[in-house]
Amino acid sequence: MPTIFFYGPELDKDKKKELIRSFTKKASELTGIDEASFVVYLKKSDPKDVGVGGELLEDRQKGQ
Amino acid sequence: MPTIFFYGPELDKDKKKELIRSFTKKASELTGIDEASFVVYLKKSDPKDVGVGGELLEDRQKGQ
Amino acid sequence: MPTIFFYGPELDKDKKKELIRSFTKKASELTGIDEASFVVYLKKSDPKDVGVGGELLEDRQKGQ
Amino acid sequence: MPTIFFYGPELDKDKKKELIRSFTKKASELTGIDEASFVVYLKKSDPKDVGVGGELLEDRQKGQ
Amino acid sequence: MPTIFFYGPELDKDKKKELIRSFTKKASELTGIDEASFVVYLKKSDPKDVGVGGELLEDRQKGQ
Amino acid sequence: MPTIFFYGPELDKDKKKELIRSFTKKASELTGIDEASFVVYLKKSDPKDVGVGGELLEDRQKGQ
Repeated sequence: MPTIFFYGPELDKDKKKELIRSFTKKASELTGIDEASFVVYLKKSDPKDVGVGGELLEDRQKGQ
Repeated sequence: MPTIFFYGPELDKDKKKELIRSFTKKASELTGIDEASFVVYLKKSDPKDVGVGGELLEDRQKGQ
Repeated sequence: MPTIFFYGPELDKDKKKELIRSFTKKASELTGIDEASFVVYLKKSDPKDVGVGGELLEDRQKGQ
Repeated sequence: MPTIFFYGPELDKDKKKELIRSFTKKASELTGIDEASFVVYLKKSDPKDVGVGGELLEDRQKGQ
Repeated sequence: MPTIFFYGPELDKDKKKELIRSFTKKASELTGIDEASFVVYLKKSDPKDVGVGGELLEDRQKGQ
Repeated sequence: MPTIFFYGPELDKDKKKELIRSFTKKASELTGIDEASFVVYLKKSDPKDVGVGGELLEDRQKGQ
């Protein structure tokens, strides 16, 4: 039943798989809940749609 | 004021309408809050971006 | 794998059960995904911690 | 460390920047936490994927 | 219909009111959507339940 | 800037620390983003407020 949301950059497929495997394994160990019950949502956050420190991330990354 | 988020597969328009109508009607009945106050967000979850039981859903669906 | 979040008022146990049963049944029908795969989170929203139309809900409910 | 999610319509870049700047500045003032610690996620909500008052927003906007 | 979630520290009532008023007013201006349609959820995040930079916030705040 | 939400059972402090440390370390490795930029929210989900497979989790756990 536990659910994990990851808001971050787009990843390639192998990295998605590793992130899901690693988060699920560790969370299962710590909670004692079976791995089969875990759902992980990867929510890609485009730098055009994220603000950090009051600035658009897209602009920060350009060094503006 | 209540707000519902649905993370699930993409649906066609008629199914979206029925899901929104049904969730809103039932939740309005149970809370006693007017239907007009309900907002439902349908957040499509692509199998490339969901992990279930430690595996990418896209891979599970292929029977891997 | 679908996940539903309900942000709304506290409900008594029978209403929680009916909301969960109803949302899960309808969403399972519309998506074709087995009921066993659905998780519903009821996230109680205290009127002290919700704003509607720019005002604290707690104050609106008092008729201020 | 505070995090803000904004579920609303798509905005042009200047409006995104102003929303991020304004939310961050005000929240920093009120919490006493440095602006650098704030993250704002702008989550565009397509009227095809939002229900208001039991209806698809896309349909309400057409005056149906 | 827009919805804002604020994950941050507990605030006193006057600060909650100002945060809600300010976020709603600015977001209404920028989106052109009536203030009455905005909902803001203040989700208090206890330092016992937040991690920053890999550490529990509660521990960081103690200077550990 | 990445943000992780964990909806699951309450954990003791040492387990919270290990979960935060492990998720942050792995996500930092995979994204190439500095650990200092990660925020993790642990959102405890009480079995009285979670539905699984159409039933209240509290009831499932009692074997009803």
